Amino acid sequence: MNLPEKAEDTFIQRYFARLATDDGAFGLHDDAASISVPDHQDLIVSTDTLVADVHFFAEDPPAKIAQKALRVNLSDIAAKGARPVGYFLNLTLPDAFMRSDEWMSEFSHGLQQDQSEFNVHLMGGDTVRCANTGVITICAYGVVPTGQMVRRNGAEAGDRLYVTGTIGDAALGLLMRKAKLHGLDTIDQDIGDAIRALDPQIKRHTEDRYLLPQPRTGISSALLAHASAAMDVSDGLVGDARTLANASSVALKIHTDQIPYSTGLEILSDESILQRICLTGGDDYEILCTVPAGQCASFEDSAVAANIAVAHIGHVKSGSGVEVIGNDGKELSFSQSSYDHFS
Amino acid sequence: MNLPEKAEDTFIQRYFARLATDDGAFGLHDDAASISVPDHQDLIVSTDTLVADVHFFAEDPPAKIAQKALRVNLSDIAAKGARPVGYFLNLTLPDAFMRSDEWMSEFSHGLQQDQSEFNVHLMGGDTVRCANTGVITICAYGVVPTGQMVRRNGAEAGDRLYVTGTIGDAALGLLMRKAKLHGLDTIDQDIGDAIRALDPQIKRHTEDRYLLPQPRTGISSALLAHASAAMDVSDGLVGDARTLANASSVALKIHTDQIPYSTGLEILSDESILQRICLTGGDDYEILCTVPAGQCASFEDSAVAANIAVAHIGHVKSGSGVEVIGNDGKELSFSQSSYDHFS
Repeated sequence: MNLPEKAEDTFIQRYFARLATDDGAFGLHDDAASISVPDHQDLIVSTDTLVADVHFFAEDPPAKIAQKALRVNLSDIAAKGARPVGYFLNLTLPDAFMRSDEWMSEFSHGLQQDQSEFNVHLMGGDTVRCANTGVITICAYGVVPTGQMVRRNGAEAGDRLYVTGTIGDAALGLLMRKAKLHGLDTIDQDIGDAIRALDPQIKRHTEDRYLLPQPRTGISSALLAHASAAMDVSDGLVGDARTLANASSVALKIHTDQIPYSTGLEILSDESILQRICLTGGDDYEILCTVPAGQCASFEDSAVAANIAVAHIGHVKSGSGVEVIGNDGKELSFSQSSYDHFS
Repeated sequence: MNLPEKAEDTFIQRYFARLATDDGAFGLHDDAASISVPDHQDLIVSTDTLVADVHFFAEDPPAKIAQKALRVNLSDIAAKGARPVGYFLNLTLPDAFMRSDEWMSEFSHGLQQDQSEFNVHLMGGDTVRCANTGVITICAYGVVPTGQMVRRNGAEAGDRLYVTGTIGDAALGLLMRKAKLHGLDTIDQDIGDAIRALDPQIKRHTEDRYLLPQPRTGISSALLAHASAAMDVSDGLVGDARTLANASSVALKIHTDQIPYSTGLEILSDESILQRICLTGGDDYEILCTVPAGQCASFEDSAVAANIAVAHIGHVKSGSGVEVIGNDGKELSFSQSSYDHFS
């Protein structure tokens, strides 16, 4: 009796087997993957779930949805000083998406592009078709020398505080998306007016940053060599800085005039409602880290060599919490410090 | 500025931090976990997603939902000859569940019980609250000596075919659940009549088996030592046997009179509609394996020592596909060989 191939196996072979080029993935033909970790290395593992209409829009291009799901995990791996290696993909998608060859092909192609860009491989996963749910879980892993993972808890008074790239683009990009979807008049009038005043080019740039994060994998070896603590900024700079401060039992002082903004947003002042959104909105996927004063020059040199901008935005003090100091030298206060889908 | 703790952090600390007792989980206070793999060992990783009303019922006891999600993954790990070590949990649940302290406490307690039973630890994960979706992904891992993972593709002609435990309980249990939910009259009349004829005790037993799989982790060292190929039976014995046959490029011959059934189901004959359900229904989470003839005695001894029943249900031949031989020596045919949520 030769039975027909199971539909799920056919689906996996069609869209995903070509992404599973590592020997330990067994072409996605087995129950499990086998990972061979080199001697004197630890495996660093991070996993994030993205839910349609919470973390992305179901109508986004499928390639971008796939890449965002992968990249938010690579961002965590990089923040720990690890070199990314592979990932597992668990896909729960509405029937209509999974039955669309076009949608699935683009999704798979997006992953393939990022596999080349970030040198990672699909190692396994699971697929479930369901009525109306889009839930994508990726579990990514990388390697660091044994015991060397860069933690959140190593910041010490006197260290300097850095952040990569630019802050707030994605939070503004999400606003742009919502404004497009529901109309500018559904947004708080002050914010709507501020958005209208922005250059169309910077509006497009922020939307792109929301759609497709740029994980700073290039900075991981500089973090490993020099950072006392690091984490990725995914839920808003101020709130994530608070998390790092708490983990390290220190205080962080941030100067708003040192925050790196994209070209077109440098105009943001402490009085700008948009700056507030930039500092507390989510989806930056930049890296916040602390570096002992004596290693800052080497850290900055390594960042230049890796072609990743880093900005010295503040420093570590004894105490607790986060101080955000405005242009006039006075402390700003925030009622909500970060994106919190639980609140 | 001391900002309030993020609601998600509080939630994680309340329900999950006590499950994360391994040093490498950092008390769930970091972006990632660090896994130290012993020299000369490979990490064996499997991940499964369970969706409410596809793989479990949303009204099931939360402890059992949690345990099922973990156990289906431990079953895969065991089937590969690996010793389970840890897991990551990605939880997407309806708001009402996540806000219920009772529901979450029971869910967490279920995991804690199974962590003790199977000697595994929570290493990390993610939680997303959403409108109406229940999607649980677990990514579990274990260890085997380097290069020794028991594959699906090692079966050779002459090997004997074994299965652990009993077959079909969970598939019948799912039928019982559906009958209770929607009434026996919504089920095919022949099946309804057959169910009515069963003893109430066996009905309860099958429901329990559906609710809570028993992963055969105790058999993993016997598999590692003796099996030429193995996989867990999750989508139906006949279909999964076909998968193993295809992977190994061999044929499998199964004798229905050798299939192990639970007490109260031995009455099933080749003519019984329930036997057909047992052989092709899902959720067994037993282990199907092939063992070279010369090692069968040692394999059976090891299984006895591990207190896990194994039944010799057939053998491996050259050729392809699966032959299921009935009591009268004639081949049975199946229109659908396994549960296939894609079909």
